[in-house]
Amino acid sequence: MNEMQTKLNELKVRLEEVKALNNAQAVLSWDQSTQMPPGGGAARAKQLAVLAQLTQEKAIDPAIGRLLDALQKYGESLPYDSDDASLIRVARRDYERDVKVPAEFMARFSAHQAESYQAWTQARPANDFDRVSPLLEKTLDLSREFANYFPGYEHIADPLIDLSDYGMKVDSIRSLFKELRARMVPIVKAITSQPVADDNCLKQSFPEAEQIAFGRKVVERLGFDFQRGRQDMSPHPFTTSFSVGDVRITTRVQERDLGDCLFSIIHESGHGMYEQGVDPAYDGTPLMGGTSSGVHESQSRLWENVVGRSRGFWEYFYPELQKTFLNLQKVSLDTFYRAINKVERSLIRTDADEVTYNLHVMMRFDFELQLLEGKLEVQDLPEAWRERFRSDLGLVPPDHKNGVLQDVHWFSGFVGGAFQGYTLGNLLGAQFYAAALKAHPEIPAEMKQGRFNRLHIWLKENLYRHGRKYTAAELVQKATGSGITIDPYIAYLQTKYATLYKL
Amino acid sequence: MNEMQTKLNELKVRLEEVKALNNAQAVLSWDQSTQMPPGGGAARAKQLAVLAQLTQEKAIDPAIGRLLDALQKYGESLPYDSDDASLIRVARRDYERDVKVPAEFMARFSAHQAESYQAWTQARPANDFDRVSPLLEKTLDLSREFANYFPGYEHIADPLIDLSDYGMKVDSIRSLFKELRARMVPIVKAITSQPVADDNCLKQSFPEAEQIAFGRKVVERLGFDFQRGRQDMSPHPFTTSFSVGDVRITTRVQERDLGDCLFSIIHESGHGMYEQGVDPAYDGTPLMGGTSSGVHESQSRLWENVVGRSRGFWEYFYPELQKTFLNLQKVSLDTFYRAINKVERSLIRTDADEVTYNLHVMMRFDFELQLLEGKLEVQDLPEAWRERFRSDLGLVPPDHKNGVLQDVHWFSGFVGGAFQGYTLGNLLGAQFYAAALKAHPEIPAEMKQGRFNRLHIWLKENLYRHGRKYTAAELVQKATGSGITIDPYIAYLQTKYATLYKL
Repeated sequence: MNEMQTKLNELKVRLEEVKALNNAQAVLSWDQSTQMPPGGGAARAKQLAVLAQLTQEKAIDPAIGRLLDALQKYGESLPYDSDDASLIRVARRDYERDVKVPAEFMARFSAHQAESYQAWTQARPANDFDRVSPLLEKTLDLSREFANYFPGYEHIADPLIDLSDYGMKVDSIRSLFKELRARMVPIVKAITSQPVADDNCLKQSFPEAEQIAFGRKVVERLGFDFQRGRQDMSPHPFTTSFSVGDVRITTRVQERDLGDCLFSIIHESGHGMYEQGVDPAYDGTPLMGGTSSGVHESQSRLWENVVGRSRGFWEYFYPELQKTFLNLQKVSLDTFYRAINKVERSLIRTDADEVTYNLHVMMRFDFELQLLEGKLEVQDLPEAWRERFRSDLGLVPPDHKNGVLQDVHWFSGFVGGAFQGYTLGNLLGAQFYAAALKAHPEIPAEMKQGRFNRLHIWLKENLYRHGRKYTAAELVQKATGSGITIDPYIAYLQTKYATLYKL
Repeated sequence: MNEMQTKLNELKVRLEEVKALNNAQAVLSWDQSTQMPPGGGAARAKQLAVLAQLTQEKAIDPAIGRLLDALQKYGESLPYDSDDASLIRVARRDYERDVKVPAEFMARFSAHQAESYQAWTQARPANDFDRVSPLLEKTLDLSREFANYFPGYEHIADPLIDLSDYGMKVDSIRSLFKELRARMVPIVKAITSQPVADDNCLKQSFPEAEQIAFGRKVVERLGFDFQRGRQDMSPHPFTTSFSVGDVRITTRVQERDLGDCLFSIIHESGHGMYEQGVDPAYDGTPLMGGTSSGVHESQSRLWENVVGRSRGFWEYFYPELQKTFLNLQKVSLDTFYRAINKVERSLIRTDADEVTYNLHVMMRFDFELQLLEGKLEVQDLPEAWRERFRSDLGLVPPDHKNGVLQDVHWFSGFVGGAFQGYTLGNLLGAQFYAAALKAHPEIPAEMKQGRFNRLHIWLKENLYRHGRKYTAAELVQKATGSGITIDPYIAYLQTKYATLYKL
């Protein structure tokens, strides 16, 4: 074996160790959100903090830096697309980021994160913003502290955005969002000035266990593999993975809201299929996982909305749904289809329809920037929230749990970089789907027959299998032939909603 | 703060880190046994191996050794019973053991353990001993390797026994078991020569979900705290704890065997109440947890058999059980009581009645010694198993899954030290109960009314709260006024079974 091979193997061993520790943390976090009894919180925070610090120490071990330096030229001599070149490239990027952040900070942040999440799970149902506002202030301080480990940024949010959407900056997101807003306002206006669709059929009583079982059946059919995954309950649905063979999605269920459980399962299964579709050769390496929050979200939104809220999808599934829930037997497919695509100005982001959804996201994105810039204080956030809701959506949240306390993000991670991925995901989901349709125009017809394999295979081939090999920008270019663009999303909305509303 | 306080605090910080890592491993293992999808096995093995190695590295950090040396005299100057003296004493004992075992070995063993457990979960239902025998051979090699890190032992099993029953040796256990066997043979003989009790009432159809729910209700009443614990399913029931506030028990259920689920839940709740009862001040320190396998098992066996199979217990619970399972309505309490205390020579240790149970244990103890001594080869184990069963119990297992493959232990830990705790537990359970009765003769009468608090409090006060502060020998002496003795157990069996059989 030559010297470069020896060094590369040594690097791989060290990176695998780091990945294993990251995955162990993910197991503890998943357990905390889905299984842990109330009494376990304090000790779990300690366990996560110790693990975070150790992982960070291992990740920034100078030995990794030396190996990366020694392998730099070798990596550049290999084809860019090769696994080894990609591993070296991505590992270097991670290392250069991680090495700037002291391990002590990560331990402090992790302990705070656990405490903050635990408090949020109680404060939200209790509608108690005061309970968490000192914690949120600390989160904001810690977020600024994190950003300041990366001096030279254009905007203080940039280092935080880099964590989830590598390569994106406040500046570019702002102009993308500005264009999007300009093109969406007329659509939202046109739709919301018409009578609201009737979705009473979704608000009947649907036994919870049967909702969960039906959702499971649907995502299994879409392609989520339960031999390599599972589904559990949590207050805020999420997806996590510990390996390509162990990808877990969660959902929540409300007896009187058929859509909440169903579409959140489909949403999470999109994330899950992405993780399950990564090349198994990347398992345990830095190439495992999704390449960015925006691309990840493109998959959840594609499966949830573009597929799961399409007419073709329900031509196949609706008879099965009617068999499961007898109170739908007298509800026509047409009525049901209009109900699940009801557009309405609403309070809760995760319940928002796909037309108004981006307004929720862009608002949070702006709040994050204002908080980080010091232009908005945490204590003023509830009022700012009410104000912005009034102006953007013409609604005022009646309480905190339907307002500022609704999202888990600021109570389980940084302020900054938490939300832009959702709107990027909407754009990219439509863009990827358009590319898949171009390659396989038969996809919609097959869906009507319950066959989702062709779409799934196209996505695996063009996106999933690459894991973190390509940046989001590279992947979008390769899969669709252009950079990120708003056009496919607008075209998708216009085509779909023209059949439901006058546009 | 004086120098000793400073050093003691430094020691505590380091020990807490080690404990947090141990607890993180426990979470991953629990998940592996109860939640993990099949595809997760390989990556989990890697995660556990990395964690095991890191934990071991932290546990044997020379800095801990230096702190312990510096604190040695200070610790001896404090009262033996004080928390600080106990912490220093127990930490030194752990350190001196751990430092002898290379971290590299622990990683190797942990990876093997995960692979072996995964294989066993498939080999057992498939009745496939060949599938696991090479793994078991490797386990045996690794067990010998472990023992040999402790040169100077009297018997090669002693260092392995020390891991679970600190202070016990092959020599002392052999003589205890010899005496026990001598005193039990006449009892077993007397009972098994009489007609076998009819337990058909337990072999009807009992819906699984209701069995689990009833079990949960029972252990909640006994004192297991679900705010600080949970109950899940696993092929082999077990208890694990991640902190005094997060103690988890598992069970299994068979539709046509009411006893299996019920008594295994009660059994595990005994372990669970022990862990939940440790002084919260010890959480996250080496003093958290049970002091030995024998004392731990004394609690599971006490609650399962001495309490859970007593007539008084069922005078309270049987009417509720009859309400839950209507097919018991025509079964008298007397018939039910005889059924749950049926004595019979049988194949499966965990199903064995409390009279023949020790024969199963003593046989495995002997096999472990023979395997370690090289007097028995792994490939000859199934035949030896059949032979010993024939001679001890007059039965021959028809297959491996009811024979040599039935126990998880050798497929998830060392060969050696795995079984003696069960019989020590039977002896100690009776001995502790006798001491509790002496202090509170009203306990049996209260149980008939569904009140278990007085016994629970006595156990917390005299055993649980001390955690690992005292060795098993010290604890037995303090709680019962004598060393471990066979008499209370024999007296318990004779009294109880004289009402059921001619003795």
